[in-house]
Amino acid sequence: MTDYRADFPILTTKINGGPLIYLDHAATSQKPQVVIDAISRYYATANANVHRGVYTLAARATAQYEAVRDQVAAFIQAPQRESVFFTRSTTDSLNWVAQTYGEQAVQAGDEIVVTAMEHHSNLVPWQQLALRKHAQLKVIGLLPNGELDWQSAEAMVTDRTKIVAVAQVSNVLGVTNPISALAKLAHQHGAILVVDGAQAVAHQPVNVQALDADFYAFSGHKMFGPTGVGVLYGKLALLKTLTPPQFGGEMIGEVTWEHTTLAAIPQRFEAGTPNISGVIGLGAAISYIQQIGFDTLRTQEQQLTAQLLNGLLNMPGVAVYGPKSVAEHGPVVAFNVIGCHPHDIATGLDLAGIEVRAGHHCAQPLMQWLQVPATVRASVAFYNTPAEIDHFLAILREVREFFQS
Amino acid sequence: MTDYRADFPILTTKINGGPLIYLDHAATSQKPQVVIDAISRYYATANANVHRGVYTLAARATAQYEAVRDQVAAFIQAPQRESVFFTRSTTDSLNWVAQTYGEQAVQAGDEIVVTAMEHHSNLVPWQQLALRKHAQLKVIGLLPNGELDWQSAEAMVTDRTKIVAVAQVSNVLGVTNPISALAKLAHQHGAILVVDGAQAVAHQPVNVQALDADFYAFSGHKMFGPTGVGVLYGKLALLKTLTPPQFGGEMIGEVTWEHTTLAAIPQRFEAGTPNISGVIGLGAAISYIQQIGFDTLRTQEQQLTAQLLNGLLNMPGVAVYGPKSVAEHGPVVAFNVIGCHPHDIATGLDLAGIEVRAGHHCAQPLMQWLQVPATVRASVAFYNTPAEIDHFLAILREVREFFQS
Repeated sequence: MTDYRADFPILTTKINGGPLIYLDHAATSQKPQVVIDAISRYYATANANVHRGVYTLAARATAQYEAVRDQVAAFIQAPQRESVFFTRSTTDSLNWVAQTYGEQAVQAGDEIVVTAMEHHSNLVPWQQLALRKHAQLKVIGLLPNGELDWQSAEAMVTDRTKIVAVAQVSNVLGVTNPISALAKLAHQHGAILVVDGAQAVAHQPVNVQALDADFYAFSGHKMFGPTGVGVLYGKLALLKTLTPPQFGGEMIGEVTWEHTTLAAIPQRFEAGTPNISGVIGLGAAISYIQQIGFDTLRTQEQQLTAQLLNGLLNMPGVAVYGPKSVAEHGPVVAFNVIGCHPHDIATGLDLAGIEVRAGHHCAQPLMQWLQVPATVRASVAFYNTPAEIDHFLAILREVREFFQS
Repeated sequence: MTDYRADFPILTTKINGGPLIYLDHAATSQKPQVVIDAISRYYATANANVHRGVYTLAARATAQYEAVRDQVAAFIQAPQRESVFFTRSTTDSLNWVAQTYGEQAVQAGDEIVVTAMEHHSNLVPWQQLALRKHAQLKVIGLLPNGELDWQSAEAMVTDRTKIVAVAQVSNVLGVTNPISALAKLAHQHGAILVVDGAQAVAHQPVNVQALDADFYAFSGHKMFGPTGVGVLYGKLALLKTLTPPQFGGEMIGEVTWEHTTLAAIPQRFEAGTPNISGVIGLGAAISYIQQIGFDTLRTQEQQLTAQLLNGLLNMPGVAVYGPKSVAEHGPVVAFNVIGCHPHDIATGLDLAGIEVRAGHHCAQPLMQWLQVPATVRASVAFYNTPAEIDHFLAILREVREFFQS
């Protein structure tokens, strides 16, 4: 296993006297020095507002910013750069679709379909849209192992369905959904498919054309990039039908007191000064991922996930949620120690420098389905090590014994 | 004049062989090393998602993020921290008010009042809201020197007015508007006052309570902070009446398939992972401004603006827009060289490393009022020098002679 740890300055941090063992990548990833440096370098050599000035520094900033649009388009295999625009976050991207396509397309009596494993950000915007429009929110069920129940999907998506919204990879169960099959199902019924790719893009190659997603949303901060930058990919034909939800500088053509004409796509959808340094940092993160390569990255993550999953499955008094085989697993494992509050477990681990999440993971309805108030969740990145997983399992054993005895 | 130039790494950059002379601060400011370092330090020592984890690193990130909310609240003298929340930009903040208060309060036949000097981001959201609602957009006129015409203001604001939206300082003319008087006028008629503070907060102390603004919007990137972070201040009583426009993680209380309860303000209005590093960078920018002090900062800016304004006023063949006295002037001067396209002037200056903006400055209706298609605009910061202004004036003279001869 190659050691990429030196790339991440935070990994030398001590937490409560122990070396940091960061296992909350599903919440946010750490940042390699090349990403931090890209942000610093932008501010030290190229900072100016984009798309506005004719001068050298503004042209430099604009070129760097627009080059990342090309980079993102290539990274997710978008058919054209115009299909890609920058938002604040995955949440912003998903709300954007609800505020534009959703407001235009959904009428009283229509249906919006989500899955039982959705993160609140791919659930609440649709629920609230349905409530505003007197439409119905329908939920695709899960199989006992947490995977999507295809029979339920076929039953839920009907000719009244306007939008199917689904995570590519669950942020709790680690399962991957059959996106291209869901796209086919949605399209057969005249609906569009909106994909929350937040937990996918850092872990596997994404091809939005092969997936046939109508919209695909993700964030920089979960893929080794900066906070405050998200991406929304949309099919160009769809984007052309949409009214922008925000208005301001650089998204307009001509403005009079009475009327405003719109700039071309994608500028039309990027009102105001964007997160320029964030976009440039995202570009550096994509380059970093590509330099390592998804083959290496996935191999390391799968080995670590197998070790984590098997260690938890073999530990007495521990309940593991989601699939029990690493083949069906993204790099995230949710579990509970029977009889212990997940917060106590996370706090016990934290005392040894091990950072895991405890809570509902912004997926309260999924917790109801699991019949638990909350879980502990450990999620790995390729730069974690087998020794870290061993240490996590050893400390968990101690914490469990402390609380269970 | 104290030299703060060493604080700004970009100022050692060469542009077209000459040292960078950056005079486009009204578009975006440069960043001191302390701001760049704050972002790097966050990623190297504290990066985790906020408000979510019980572990040490998450608590550290959350504490740093929330400390900036306190810092911002104190900086603009907000009565309580809950009145402050973070957005993507000034544009995002202003659109937010249009999408929430605007959608709720404005009905057919109502009026929204702006001024003739507004930036598109404080004009087009209101124009489009008025079009959607069959309301009327009314425009407060300007005096010949570019200052707000108070008689026009009194005529435009009526009992049908629901919203008055105005810039504190114009991004083109550099004039300051009488905000507290406008607040009184708006309130007398039952309207609210929305203030675009983007061009004000980096240049003068702002007291939102003394201004009596109902909403006050600004950006980090124009006040020596990072891109991708904006602020919206709102009166708490007003905020409590508003439905959030975006839904997702950490802005909810309880979520079931059918319903969602909302978290307390301000979390209610910050859906999804925020721009954590951007917020922390903004905090460093505020500390930097406070360390210099507004007295020093304003004195230096006014000296530079006086030199710039007088130099341009005394140059034959140059038309200067806005007030002709520095007492009425923010640190931005718009001008044209008669008979020359502003883009040619900016390009000529750029060849000597001098970066100024040419265009409509996202204020096309103001350009119509000025009866020009575009202007050149030079805007200074406290770290510019008299020698830079002299050099700018000397090169402008050469460029003017080249084009006018």
